Amino acid sequence: MERKLKIGLFGFGCVGQGLHDIFTKTDSINAEIVKICVKDKAKKRSLPMDYFTFEKEDLLNDPEVNTIVEVIDTADEAFEIVKTAMEGGKSVVTANKKMVAENFKELVDLQLKHNVSLLYEASSCASIPVIRNLEEYYDNDMLTAFEGIFNGSSNYILSKMVNEGKGYDEVLKQAQEIGYAESDPTLDVGGHDAKYKLCILTAHAFGVYVDPEEIFTYGIQTINDHDLKFAMEKRLKIKLFASSQIINGKLATWVMPQFCDDRFKLYNVENEYNGVVLEGAFSDAQQLIGKGAGSHATGSAVASDISALAYNYRYEYKKLQRPNRPERTNDFIIEVYIRYENKEDISDLKFESVDQVYESSTFKYLVGKIKLSSLVNQTILSNPNCFIAQTEVPARVLN
Amino acid sequence: MERKLKIGLFGFGCVGQGLHDIFTKTDSINAEIVKICVKDKAKKRSLPMDYFTFEKEDLLNDPEVNTIVEVIDTADEAFEIVKTAMEGGKSVVTANKKMVAENFKELVDLQLKHNVSLLYEASSCASIPVIRNLEEYYDNDMLTAFEGIFNGSSNYILSKMVNEGKGYDEVLKQAQEIGYAESDPTLDVGGHDAKYKLCILTAHAFGVYVDPEEIFTYGIQTINDHDLKFAMEKRLKIKLFASSQIINGKLATWVMPQFCDDRFKLYNVENEYNGVVLEGAFSDAQQLIGKGAGSHATGSAVASDISALAYNYRYEYKKLQRPNRPERTNDFIIEVYIRYENKEDISDLKFESVDQVYESSTFKYLVGKIKLSSLVNQTILSNPNCFIAQTEVPARVLN
Repeated sequence: MERKLKIGLFGFGCVGQGLHDIFTKTDSINAEIVKICVKDKAKKRSLPMDYFTFEKEDLLNDPEVNTIVEVIDTADEAFEIVKTAMEGGKSVVTANKKMVAENFKELVDLQLKHNVSLLYEASSCASIPVIRNLEEYYDNDMLTAFEGIFNGSSNYILSKMVNEGKGYDEVLKQAQEIGYAESDPTLDVGGHDAKYKLCILTAHAFGVYVDPEEIFTYGIQTINDHDLKFAMEKRLKIKLFASSQIINGKLATWVMPQFCDDRFKLYNVENEYNGVVLEGAFSDAQQLIGKGAGSHATGSAVASDISALAYNYRYEYKKLQRPNRPERTNDFIIEVYIRYENKEDISDLKFESVDQVYESSTFKYLVGKIKLSSLVNQTILSNPNCFIAQTEVPARVLN
Repeated sequence: MERKLKIGLFGFGCVGQGLHDIFTKTDSINAEIVKICVKDKAKKRSLPMDYFTFEKEDLLNDPEVNTIVEVIDTADEAFEIVKTAMEGGKSVVTANKKMVAENFKELVDLQLKHNVSLLYEASSCASIPVIRNLEEYYDNDMLTAFEGIFNGSSNYILSKMVNEGKGYDEVLKQAQEIGYAESDPTLDVGGHDAKYKLCILTAHAFGVYVDPEEIFTYGIQTINDHDLKFAMEKRLKIKLFASSQIINGKLATWVMPQFCDDRFKLYNVENEYNGVVLEGAFSDAQQLIGKGAGSHATGSAVASDISALAYNYRYEYKKLQRPNRPERTNDFIIEVYIRYENKEDISDLKFESVDQVYESSTFKYLVGKIKLSSLVNQTILSNPNCFIAQTEVPARVLN
């Protein structure tokens, strides 16, 4: 049943080099990297130049190459490569979460139409095999919710702030220096990276594709020392959570910072680690924890997908084919902490209840209950002087 | 591809009732429990009596029944049922770790010979899908080690001792009262339950079947307040660990208590929870954490296996077919704490080094390095006045 894979690799950055390194150190994967397509002609490479090409057609049109592995940065370019490869009958492994999330439906159709496989475990939580678990083990309707820490850079920043009492700007700079955060960190700290992963995992978990742009997404860019003090006084940690839950029979998906006490399953997931909690109707919560970023962590997920392809593995998308898939909703109540500067910052918000108000000359906040739908599109979301985070009670407990 | 399963269920205790409960609450599993075989004719049942039979042939010889689910207690009886079912062309789901561990090779052969599937996810760590992860995701040689907390009862006892400073006897009694420990707790606290699970997981992880009786197994029965004090003074926790690791190219498997500091991935796995850490050559450590026991936790694992059977899922045992499978070894060094009463208790032990010795009128211990092979079959293992546990450095770090 096993077949030899001849791989055309797109990209030789962090992940591509990690993957190549893994291939040189293991012989259990029945696959071989035939050629690598890169962009930058001037860049020095760690391998002989005859491994490389600068023309994507050299890989896409090579009949010897039966598998494309795509680990480049740009989503649009990646989609063109992946689409062309699949149309040409080649199976594909990719790590590109934005590309997969934005083109999910078309990518599912392409697999069926051209009878090829597209695997993308590395796109979501790097080394944690969460898609595989959703596909293979939670393929019945016993899953009721999942939530997780999907972005290693944000988690690193929040860990350093809470555990070492450091300021946001200082830690962000540090994260950028050691390579955990991009030079433009908006994708990470703005919650967009987590949003793309949430979109992919939700499709596998609940059979519902949600356009990433329709997922409520609020990041940690505006967090400051006051929020940190609020958390530390109450022995809370702050995590950037992505959540997908069945609430009153409907599907809720959102990305938002969360104050956690030690009852939270992911309370101890620190620094660059990612964690997912899968909650079943009967199985209680399962936790999956592992490194969420890095050359080898992501490379090993790509390598596992390649290994699975050698056995003709394909995602079955069983839940996408279900007749009774849940509708989406933003019409559910969450409990939030909102730090604000002036009363006007929050004057447009319709709270279900305001349970705590604190005001001093330096620092104002309230804690209250609000429907997520009442937060959508509000100007406070882009107000640099405000910060919003869920307080410790998970939303579904309130419903 | 999906087929309707007609299930004959053996056993209607804790797990059987949990499974039935799940079936009444979900309609996504394409299966139906046709009849239930039980032993005790006098026992009151929660279902109408025409669901039940006392004759196993009523299920095994019923051509309508295409699937047997076996959740009885006795390993030998379970094996007879499972074997007869498979010989009759029926696929089987079981939760019986002892039965699977003791008959592993024959059960693999029976699947091939009669072209049926045997699934047993519930046998190892209940709701945590660890076998499925080993089969589907770690099916290449990139896994180098796994270790875990596999026995919920022992972990519950150790958690209560360390976190609440209670004595062993008191906590054991409490565990028995709330149903976490058997009335004869030897299987749990003696490490045998963990040993069977280790045996099953090792076969899937490394392709090597180890006779459970050949796995070095030391439990927590002789732990006392001195050991607890030793741990608490150093802010260590005590966990019963089952380990399977490639050390110097050979396979080491053993069950032993372990003092853990907070660098240990499973440090925060408390009470009835189980946890597994899977260490890859490249992926760093993955943690899987979930409830290790209980009616619904185990029932949900059985239900997931049934759901997979409906799609004709089978374990592929890829690693058992590998040509280069590792040899076994006990010839590796571990660092241990040994509490003893008299010098004679330890006089037969050949240490590589003795690094700490403490003696007072009430309490004596040493910390030293010793080969596991030097501990095998020593009388100290059955000495009720001694307790042995690994200290915080994992074995493979010393090699």
